[in-house]
Amino acid sequence: MADLELIHELLTPASTKILLFVLDGLGGLPVSAGGPTELEAAHTPNLDRLASEGMVGLHQPVGPGITPGSGPGHIGLFGYDAIRYQIGRGVLEALGVGFDLGPNDLAARGNFCTVDATGKITDRRAGRIPTERCRQLCDELRKIELPDVELFVEPVREHRFLIVLRAKGLEEGVSDSDPGHVGSPALDVTAERPEAEKAARLVRRFVAEARERLAGHAPANMVLLRGLARLPDWPKFPDVFGLRSVAVAQYPMYRGVAKLVGMDTAEAGATLDELLTTLEHVWPHYDFAFVHVKETDRAGEDGDFERKAKVIEEVDRYVPRLTALKPDVIIVTGDHSTPAALRSHSWHPVPFLLWSSSCRSDQVMRFGEKWCLEGGAGLSRSEDLMPLALAHAGRMTKFGA
Amino acid sequence: MADLELIHELLTPASTKILLFVLDGLGGLPVSAGGPTELEAAHTPNLDRLASEGMVGLHQPVGPGITPGSGPGHIGLFGYDAIRYQIGRGVLEALGVGFDLGPNDLAARGNFCTVDATGKITDRRAGRIPTERCRQLCDELRKIELPDVELFVEPVREHRFLIVLRAKGLEEGVSDSDPGHVGSPALDVTAERPEAEKAARLVRRFVAEARERLAGHAPANMVLLRGLARLPDWPKFPDVFGLRSVAVAQYPMYRGVAKLVGMDTAEAGATLDELLTTLEHVWPHYDFAFVHVKETDRAGEDGDFERKAKVIEEVDRYVPRLTALKPDVIIVTGDHSTPAALRSHSWHPVPFLLWSSSCRSDQVMRFGEKWCLEGGAGLSRSEDLMPLALAHAGRMTKFGA
Repeated sequence: MADLELIHELLTPASTKILLFVLDGLGGLPVSAGGPTELEAAHTPNLDRLASEGMVGLHQPVGPGITPGSGPGHIGLFGYDAIRYQIGRGVLEALGVGFDLGPNDLAARGNFCTVDATGKITDRRAGRIPTERCRQLCDELRKIELPDVELFVEPVREHRFLIVLRAKGLEEGVSDSDPGHVGSPALDVTAERPEAEKAARLVRRFVAEARERLAGHAPANMVLLRGLARLPDWPKFPDVFGLRSVAVAQYPMYRGVAKLVGMDTAEAGATLDELLTTLEHVWPHYDFAFVHVKETDRAGEDGDFERKAKVIEEVDRYVPRLTALKPDVIIVTGDHSTPAALRSHSWHPVPFLLWSSSCRSDQVMRFGEKWCLEGGAGLSRSEDLMPLALAHAGRMTKFGA
Repeated sequence: MADLELIHELLTPASTKILLFVLDGLGGLPVSAGGPTELEAAHTPNLDRLASEGMVGLHQPVGPGITPGSGPGHIGLFGYDAIRYQIGRGVLEALGVGFDLGPNDLAARGNFCTVDATGKITDRRAGRIPTERCRQLCDELRKIELPDVELFVEPVREHRFLIVLRAKGLEEGVSDSDPGHVGSPALDVTAERPEAEKAARLVRRFVAEARERLAGHAPANMVLLRGLARLPDWPKFPDVFGLRSVAVAQYPMYRGVAKLVGMDTAEAGATLDELLTTLEHVWPHYDFAFVHVKETDRAGEDGDFERKAKVIEEVDRYVPRLTALKPDVIIVTGDHSTPAALRSHSWHPVPFLLWSSSCRSDQVMRFGEKWCLEGGAGLSRSEDLMPLALAHAGRMTKFGA
């Protein structure tokens, strides 16, 4: 199967533009057998028109049966093999709070936890302390001093926080201190390879000091760390695909993942109108825009079928503003499925439509999972959407003569 | 996915016969939204009957979004992974003019070009000199003498020619002299690995002498070389698949690609009648025949929708002569799409039909892209057609007990 190097070699210059519009968790399920999914239930005349003029299909993130997190879901849509290009847990946590990771940063996901007098963990989440309490305790942890290291401690939500150690020579390969279960003490932090020795020593020292500083703060009287990771050095999306690229998103996580692959980012306000206004503002300066809508996923996670369908309908009403930008290629899809019936991300393939002037028409007139099954794009891997978009944008030349 | 070794291990003897009938560039596009493709527009009662008795599908050459050249398109149909088995530019040029490459040959694609007084390239194609002029200049280049090397220089078309150096020890890994753009001089030819040193030295000498001999022949006063390649040492089709195999084609390129994988070849006259007559003549002596029709691609490249549809209709009228040969398996397809609407090869999946007595009937009654979408063979990779053909020919045994 084609890899990024091959795609890159086949690029040919063009002035065409590609719009990737992502409704997070778009794919759904019926709530009763034989019923419609959220997307099928929604009244979407504008998306249906794009589907009928273009082609539709389903894409499979990561692999059959695999439920992707937000990171791999988007990495796949961006054309990267989500198994080969994995984002470390610490880095993902940093992206989620909009922490601007640098090249000398080592990031970890932290939990406040409860330990008993012998040091054994009795609650890995410290009774899910309120976020406000988390903030206070992070202030306390910030007082820890590590030699020649800049330390950042950022609250996330409830018991969760982020730590970042900034110094030269901090390599990946530091083990987790979180054993993943109660009843035993936190694990010793060790270097899994020699290059990580310096980082492991500093993290051990952080953990030891945190233990002392938190001793009187039960239930949050200890920390657990995991997923110590650096910013990955991946091929950059704008270079690989030859596209000046921007991500327009309301939440830090999605701008963060886009930034990880080298896209510019534009922060948008909370409404669809504000999202579109930001897109319209940046659009003239880019060849590729990734636009992210979060509310579909949120409604799915809440188990609210009706609300998810309504969000889709609301997005549909904004489609004329998308087409008014005159993109040469429009893809509308999700990063994964979040069926309200499951109240969570799921492994189900994700419906997509691809609109361009060079689509071979299938006979599908509506946008929805069951119709996508009959679509001209078949069942694709998520990472195949980018090469398809480039082809339809006239940005790829022939392979071999 | 199954590889050639696995397929080979599963072979079981049979006396069945397979016919692979290729209409070059068969896949198409509508000229207006919702309209038929060339194949859908064509009246093809005989192909429709095969489609209805057999099964249909679409195959994707190389990978999603990738437009294949003629080489990779056919390599895929022959069951080889077109990314793993890439034909060097020089070799492809040799195949195109029917030059019989041997094991000691190093071939390159050549361009006559124009350089100014300082040696800078001002036209990479020497104003597309007439083919007749190319022929005269090739005669001039043939006078170049290289020590212990047999040199062949063959005109191709306009500014294009082929050179072949024949000697022991000429290895691949010689850099191109063609910088791919005007404004700079031809690049120095160097060895990209030590084994290629001898070949690089000889090619440098050829280029130096060519410069001298062409000095007075502006606009064709210099040469550019690229794609220096040897005949690849690939597994041979007749061995891999256990089939006595023949290619029946009107053009050297297609016989050449078939020969590259070890098929016998039979040259056919220009008409479909002559093509079929040649097939009928060789058919009794082989288990597998690849038959190639060029005119569909040519009409597509000319942007002539009507003519492409007419060629397909003409082929349809010859189908009874194909079935009269009583092949056990018939595949009718293209090596890639060449939609008249795009006037070029394209990335769109290619319709195919597979007829045999062991087809599970789908419900498709006609041969055309939109009906193939609903076919029993789904969307396959091109290289999966050969294993399917072998299975339907009763030539593959069980995998595992």
